[in-house]
Amino acid sequence: MTGAITHVEGGTITTARGFRAGGTYVGIKTYSEDKMDMGLLLSDSPCSVAGVFTKSTLVSPSVTVNRETLAAGGPVRGLVVNSGIANAGVGEQGYIDAKEMAAVAAAGLGVKPEEVLVFSTGVIGVELPMTLIRKGVENIELAEEGGNSLARSMMTTDTRTKESAVSVNVGGAEINICGVAKGSGMIHPNMATMLCFVATDAAVDQDYLRSILPDIADSTLNMLDIDGDTSTNDSLVVLANGAAGNDSISAGSADADAFRDALSEVLVQLTRQLAQDGEGATRLIVAEVRGARNLADARMAAKTITSSLLVKSAVYGADPNWGRLIMALGRCGAETVESKIDLYINGVCIMESGRPVPFHRDAVVALMRGEEVTFGVNLNLSDGHATAWGCDLTEEYVVINSAYTT
Amino acid sequence: MTGAITHVEGGTITTARGFRAGGTYVGIKTYSEDKMDMGLLLSDSPCSVAGVFTKSTLVSPSVTVNRETLAAGGPVRGLVVNSGIANAGVGEQGYIDAKEMAAVAAAGLGVKPEEVLVFSTGVIGVELPMTLIRKGVENIELAEEGGNSLARSMMTTDTRTKESAVSVNVGGAEINICGVAKGSGMIHPNMATMLCFVATDAAVDQDYLRSILPDIADSTLNMLDIDGDTSTNDSLVVLANGAAGNDSISAGSADADAFRDALSEVLVQLTRQLAQDGEGATRLIVAEVRGARNLADARMAAKTITSSLLVKSAVYGADPNWGRLIMALGRCGAETVESKIDLYINGVCIMESGRPVPFHRDAVVALMRGEEVTFGVNLNLSDGHATAWGCDLTEEYVVINSAYTT
Repeated sequence: MTGAITHVEGGTITTARGFRAGGTYVGIKTYSEDKMDMGLLLSDSPCSVAGVFTKSTLVSPSVTVNRETLAAGGPVRGLVVNSGIANAGVGEQGYIDAKEMAAVAAAGLGVKPEEVLVFSTGVIGVELPMTLIRKGVENIELAEEGGNSLARSMMTTDTRTKESAVSVNVGGAEINICGVAKGSGMIHPNMATMLCFVATDAAVDQDYLRSILPDIADSTLNMLDIDGDTSTNDSLVVLANGAAGNDSISAGSADADAFRDALSEVLVQLTRQLAQDGEGATRLIVAEVRGARNLADARMAAKTITSSLLVKSAVYGADPNWGRLIMALGRCGAETVESKIDLYINGVCIMESGRPVPFHRDAVVALMRGEEVTFGVNLNLSDGHATAWGCDLTEEYVVINSAYTT
Repeated sequence: MTGAITHVEGGTITTARGFRAGGTYVGIKTYSEDKMDMGLLLSDSPCSVAGVFTKSTLVSPSVTVNRETLAAGGPVRGLVVNSGIANAGVGEQGYIDAKEMAAVAAAGLGVKPEEVLVFSTGVIGVELPMTLIRKGVENIELAEEGGNSLARSMMTTDTRTKESAVSVNVGGAEINICGVAKGSGMIHPNMATMLCFVATDAAVDQDYLRSILPDIADSTLNMLDIDGDTSTNDSLVVLANGAAGNDSISAGSADADAFRDALSEVLVQLTRQLAQDGEGATRLIVAEVRGARNLADARMAAKTITSSLLVKSAVYGADPNWGRLIMALGRCGAETVESKIDLYINGVCIMESGRPVPFHRDAVVALMRGEEVTFGVNLNLSDGHATAWGCDLTEEYVVINSAYTT
C-alpha cells in the first residue's frame, strides 16, 4: 500500500536504516550531568543531500562552508554539530575553524572532508575552542540508537529534544524519514529553526530532493515563530542514503507525492515540537487561516497572528482578547474585508461576518488553558489556506534572554 | 533670528496660542482618582490640517471618518477623543457612533460636525457607550491650560502623559508647535503611536502641511517600536490656526525648513517619551545607523535593532550581548558587509571592521544600566543614516498584556 504515513513511536533520526549517530560533552557549554555539546551523524553509504539555510545576510561561516559543499554537488556521508558557540561574528577565523571542524570530523568518521556538513549553534561573537572539538571527535561513539544523543548535543536553551520519525511505503519498499531539530530562541520565518537534520533511508534523486525542499520548508519550519528573530546559523538539511532499497524517487515518480507528504509530515511534527518548547513557552499556538485571496496572503495572516506579542501574551493569560486577532489581520498585509471575517478560538465561533458573537467567555477561557490554542480564521474571500505555529510569551522568555551571556 | 528651536519647559498642546482643551471622566475606563477618559481640543479660529493614519487594512471607523473629513479639505476647529474603547471590530455600528461622537462634540464646542476630528483608543470589539460620551461633552471645561487634561484623557496603559512644545521664529513671528501623544502597546512602524495630536499657532498652508507630514512621520513616529504590533486606530494629526500672526508658511517660503525642523523636533520628543513609557519598559533604546547604502537600508537596520525581542531582553538585563546586533543587522534586509561593520554601545566601540574589540565588560554593563542605551552602527558602505527608538522588554510587559481584558 502506498502513501499511508505511520508515525514511529519513539523514533529518532537513526530510525532511518544505515545511519549511526552519537554525542558527547567536550566542555563548550557549562557542565551538568548528561549534558552534551557535540554530535556526529554518519551514513554507511553516500547520500543525496538538500539544504535550506538562513536568509540572513550575516551568516555563520559554517553555513558558508555547507553552501559550498552542497554547491559542489557530491554525495555527503554525515555531519558534525556543536552547541554553545555559534561560530558567527568572529571575522575570518570562523571560516578557518568551520573547515577544520569538518576535516577533523571527517578524519574521525573515515570519510572525506567534503562529505561532512558542519553546524554550530549558540552564542555569537566567540571563537570555537578547536582543541575541545578535536578531542570531541575522538570521544563520540556512533550507534544505531544514537539519534537521541545527537538531538541532545544540539540543544542550547531547549528544555527537551525534538525528534520525529515516520515510515511510508514508496517505490516498492517501506522507507523511513526521520529528523531531529533544536530551537528555541531567535526563531522566525525565513528558516524558522536554528538547526534541523533529516535522514531518510529512501533512495531519492538529489535534484528532486533539492527541488521540493524549499516549498516544504516554507509550509512547515518557515511557518514557525518564537520571537521574530532570525539566526545567523539556521539550517535544514536532508540526507537520503537509499538503504531502504526502494526504486529511486524522482520528479514524476509514482510515489513522489507520497514521499513529499511524508517528509512534510516529519517537518510539521518537528515544527510543533519546536513551537511547544519555545523559550519560556507554556502552550502551543496554531493559527489556521482559510478563505484568503491566495497562499501568500494566508501565510502572512497566519504568521502575523502567531508572531504578535499581544496575541502571544493574551494566550499566556488565557485571555480571549480577539481584538488582537483583528489587529494582526489588519496589519499583516493580506487582503481583508471586515464584514466577511469569521474567527474561532479552539473551534468556538467568536466573530461571524465581522460582528462579535456573544460567546460563553468562561468556556473559551477554559479551552485556552489547555496545551494548545488554535485560532481559526476564515477570510471568506477565496481558497488560500495556511497554518502557522508559535508559542505564548511569558515572563520566563524575558528572564532567559535578559541574561544569556552574563 | 530664524530657526533656533527653543524647548518650552512644561509645555503642552495648549501652549500654542488660540487653542483650549480639557478632559473628564465619563466612566469608560475603570475609575480611579484623577483618571480621565474623554477629552476635547478647540481652536478659536479655523485650522489648516494634515493627518497620517494607520496602514492597517482593518481600521477603526473613527479613522475612516477622519479620512473623509480631511479629504473634504475644509478647515478644522477641534477634536474629540476617548480612551478605554477603540471603536473597532464592532461592525457597522462603529461608523454610526464615530459620526455621532463628532456631531455631539461639535454641538458642545459650537462648531460644525465636519470641523471636528474624532479619535478612540482602547479595547477592540466593544461598542462605544454613546450615552456616557454625550454626557462627557457637557462636563468638559475648556481652558488655555487644558493641554495636560487632554493628554491624560487619552491614556490607556500609559503610566504618564506625553507632551512637548517648541517655539521658533519664522515668517516674522515667534510660533509654537506643541503636541500630546499616547502609547503604549500595539506600537510598531507604520504609524508608531496610537494617537498623536499637534497644534501650532503658525499660519501654514494646508497643502504644504500635508506634503511634509508623511516624511516627518516616517523619520519620527514611524521609527518607534514598542512591541511590533500596529493598531487599528493609529493617528497623527497637525492643526495650524495662524494665531501667531506669521506670514503663512508654504512650499518655498524662506522659513519652510525652519518650520519643518521644529515640527520634526516636537515629534522626536514625543517619540522618545512614547518609547520611554512603552509597556513595562525600564529604559529607552536608541539605534543610530550610519554608513548604510541608502536611507531605506538605514531605517530597516535601525528599526530591526530596536524591535528585536532578543536585543530588547538583553537591554533589560544590561547584557552587552552584541551578537544579537549582528543577528538583527543580518536579517533586516539592508545590505551589509561583515568586515566593514563597526558597533558601539553608548559610545564604546565593541566591534571594528567586523572583529570583536576586547572592551571593558563591566564598564559597558554599567553604561547599559542607565536610562538610555544607544547602539551605534556604522555599516561603512555609503552615507545612509537613520535613528530608531524603542524600549526594553520586561516581565512587566507580559504581565500587562496577558490579562488586559480579563
